[in-house]
Amino acid sequence: MTSPLKRTLTRELPQHEGQTVKLQGFVHARRDLGGVQFLVLRDVTGVTQCVGSGLTLPLAESSVEVVGKVKAHPKAPGGFEVQVEDFRVISAATEATPVEIPKMEWNVNPETMLDYRVVTVRGLKERAALKVQAELVDAFRAHLRGEGFTEISTPKIVSAGAEGGANLFPIDYFGHPAYLAQSPQLYKQIMVGVFERVFEVAAVYRAEEHATSRHLNEYLSLDVEMGFIEDEEDVMGLENRLLASIMERLRATSQAEFELLGATIPDVPAHIPRITLMDARQLVTEKYGHPVGGKDLDPEAERLLSQHFAETEGSDFVFVTKYPRAARPFYAHPELNEDGSVNGEVTRGFDLLFRGIEITSGGQRIHDYGMLMDSIAAYKLKPESLEGYTEVFKYGMPPHGGFAIGAERLTAKLLGIANVRYARAFPRDRHRLTP
Amino acid sequence: MTSPLKRTLTRELPQHEGQTVKLQGFVHARRDLGGVQFLVLRDVTGVTQCVGSGLTLPLAESSVEVVGKVKAHPKAPGGFEVQVEDFRVISAATEATPVEIPKMEWNVNPETMLDYRVVTVRGLKERAALKVQAELVDAFRAHLRGEGFTEISTPKIVSAGAEGGANLFPIDYFGHPAYLAQSPQLYKQIMVGVFERVFEVAAVYRAEEHATSRHLNEYLSLDVEMGFIEDEEDVMGLENRLLASIMERLRATSQAEFELLGATIPDVPAHIPRITLMDARQLVTEKYGHPVGGKDLDPEAERLLSQHFAETEGSDFVFVTKYPRAARPFYAHPELNEDGSVNGEVTRGFDLLFRGIEITSGGQRIHDYGMLMDSIAAYKLKPESLEGYTEVFKYGMPPHGGFAIGAERLTAKLLGIANVRYARAFPRDRHRLTP
Repeated sequence: MTSPLKRTLTRELPQHEGQTVKLQGFVHARRDLGGVQFLVLRDVTGVTQCVGSGLTLPLAESSVEVVGKVKAHPKAPGGFEVQVEDFRVISAATEATPVEIPKMEWNVNPETMLDYRVVTVRGLKERAALKVQAELVDAFRAHLRGEGFTEISTPKIVSAGAEGGANLFPIDYFGHPAYLAQSPQLYKQIMVGVFERVFEVAAVYRAEEHATSRHLNEYLSLDVEMGFIEDEEDVMGLENRLLASIMERLRATSQAEFELLGATIPDVPAHIPRITLMDARQLVTEKYGHPVGGKDLDPEAERLLSQHFAETEGSDFVFVTKYPRAARPFYAHPELNEDGSVNGEVTRGFDLLFRGIEITSGGQRIHDYGMLMDSIAAYKLKPESLEGYTEVFKYGMPPHGGFAIGAERLTAKLLGIANVRYARAFPRDRHRLTP
Repeated sequence: MTSPLKRTLTRELPQHEGQTVKLQGFVHARRDLGGVQFLVLRDVTGVTQCVGSGLTLPLAESSVEVVGKVKAHPKAPGGFEVQVEDFRVISAATEATPVEIPKMEWNVNPETMLDYRVVTVRGLKERAALKVQAELVDAFRAHLRGEGFTEISTPKIVSAGAEGGANLFPIDYFGHPAYLAQSPQLYKQIMVGVFERVFEVAAVYRAEEHATSRHLNEYLSLDVEMGFIEDEEDVMGLENRLLASIMERLRATSQAEFELLGATIPDVPAHIPRITLMDARQLVTEKYGHPVGGKDLDPEAERLLSQHFAETEGSDFVFVTKYPRAARPFYAHPELNEDGSVNGEVTRGFDLLFRGIEITSGGQRIHDYGMLMDSIAAYKLKPESLEGYTEVFKYGMPPHGGFAIGAERLTAKLLGIANVRYARAFPRDRHRLTP
């Protein structure tokens, strides 16, 4: 049935000028001018215009095979077109698509596009976002393996929340109450006792009621934890190198996707600027007249602080350091005073801002059992409810710290995608459980 | 506090004979003979004996730093020992471990070991299993990327089960009923329409009540789906190459772990033997006198069939092909008769057996909308309950197929670990929700 020719990908066409090739893919777009038919074939590497006569074109999105001669054609996408000699429908679409895939715009009817995601996800921009994410995630792992990290897989069905108990999705686990994990926090810390340096790439779950353009209820968390550190500076140094490595990979593999989306790959400074949260608040207030209340930076303050470092240091990234205890969970390592005593106000926690938005929370964690118990008391938490967490700290945990990056949020911010839901294949939000 | 020397890993000691090095790690074992103290230090790369005098040894599992001279010592583990010049406790254990980590045996009190998994997981064999799994998973991804596959991340919170609806864990999703995904089956098929060839590494969930040595309620599924295939032979060919690539990686990275566990890395034949399910039943019945009832092979039949191919063809692997429809879900592609009509009895589904146990189910899937509807009717399922599944098949899905490998089961079988729970860091079973 199929032509005995080896399949050629559309990306490879420039190497086959003048030759007859076999393409396989989907009917991305089509036009029948009577005597001549145009068909834009989409495969995993791109799109190509195919021209023939006497063809009966199937509905858009049908899978087809085209055999034809490759000809340079400056006006065609990719600079080449294929003159159809043989045409075969591999699998015919039985209905017109609910939206025209090549004409989708993300700002028009976004909910409709998500309703029909099973087919709209085939769009060129849609898949470009997911392709960039796949590269980004692979570069994340490759860099960490290079620095001696071991990949782990930890439970997502848990008996209690690692971050305090709010915003958990309940599961019926053989009649016992259980929850979906909000983060692998405790488990990645435990695994520092095993492999010293660990990472995990896995979905995590936040039952947050709000539906914003930056939150997902299920997202891919890129988690890192490293032991035998001096302090959080080691962790920030790692994240700095890691981001540089990820952007280097994207420059090598994903230029086409960035161009399609009109985005640029950021430079990562050899030393990402750092500013303490206290200084950041003062700067935003004094320079931009934006008063910062509360214990953290609000979204507008994050935007202004990023703007400042972009303008003054040319950096798209900035670490905000020394978060107050009030803004951090009980396991955050407190800053120490010069005499080694605990500073009750400030932690070794940090955030990383990228182009105006927080993409990481991280820091050093408490490893000393006594200090952890004191912290639990200071936070007015019940030690017995945290026994699952505190147990491992009886067994000589080394100083350690880590961070987590939300893969979709980083992808969206890199590509200038306004709503993080388009950086996930099948997003889950407050109102969306399908497809 | 810490020595200014750069940290040396125990694996690197042979390169430092006669030099003074700094080691960091955990107190794996210790012995105080009064005038002389022995300490076995464990870091991520191995263990080393350290000898000193006048040392006050902390409890086992404490994090420590040792500065000392490297000396060849044929009887010491690794062939070298470190003569302690400076010794520092980084983080002291505050309690003795509930079991002695170096003396654990997997066949003694397995439940106790899992109860104390937060610290027993530090054992050399325990971590070797997880380390091998990390390599295996990475090799899986690397091979598939090399063959043009794209990594995807699909929802684990779903509105219905992909495999038919049984054995699902219910979730309360903002007051709506939802479930934990049993497999990414539908989603990986949808994504064939986007990237043609996709894979996913993610946890899946089976609410199976039975507690056997080969089942987990949460496990890491290595999922593959490829489009534009001719038939299931393309899928088996891929899996054959993939397994060869994984074993090649393990030979390069994981010899020490296999030795520690007394296991050998299998050779993967260039062409893994295939046998149809019908022939397999007949063979097992006639050669071994083991009658095979039901629609599938029972565990004993799997063992005998593997034995046959190990003895006659020297292969640890065998594909069992052409599964009957009764043993496969509705989406399994039926075998076609010579005239192209559907064979109502047999599918293009296969299993892969490895050393006596099934490690993969796979096959070609139905891509034709009409054939899918006919199959749903033949299985006496309600089309309206499967609309979420069938929708995408209206849009020209190409012929495709795939398979899934359970990472823990493959790891356990490779390493000769009798219970699959020891191939997962924190297993979930019928009775175990913590740690």
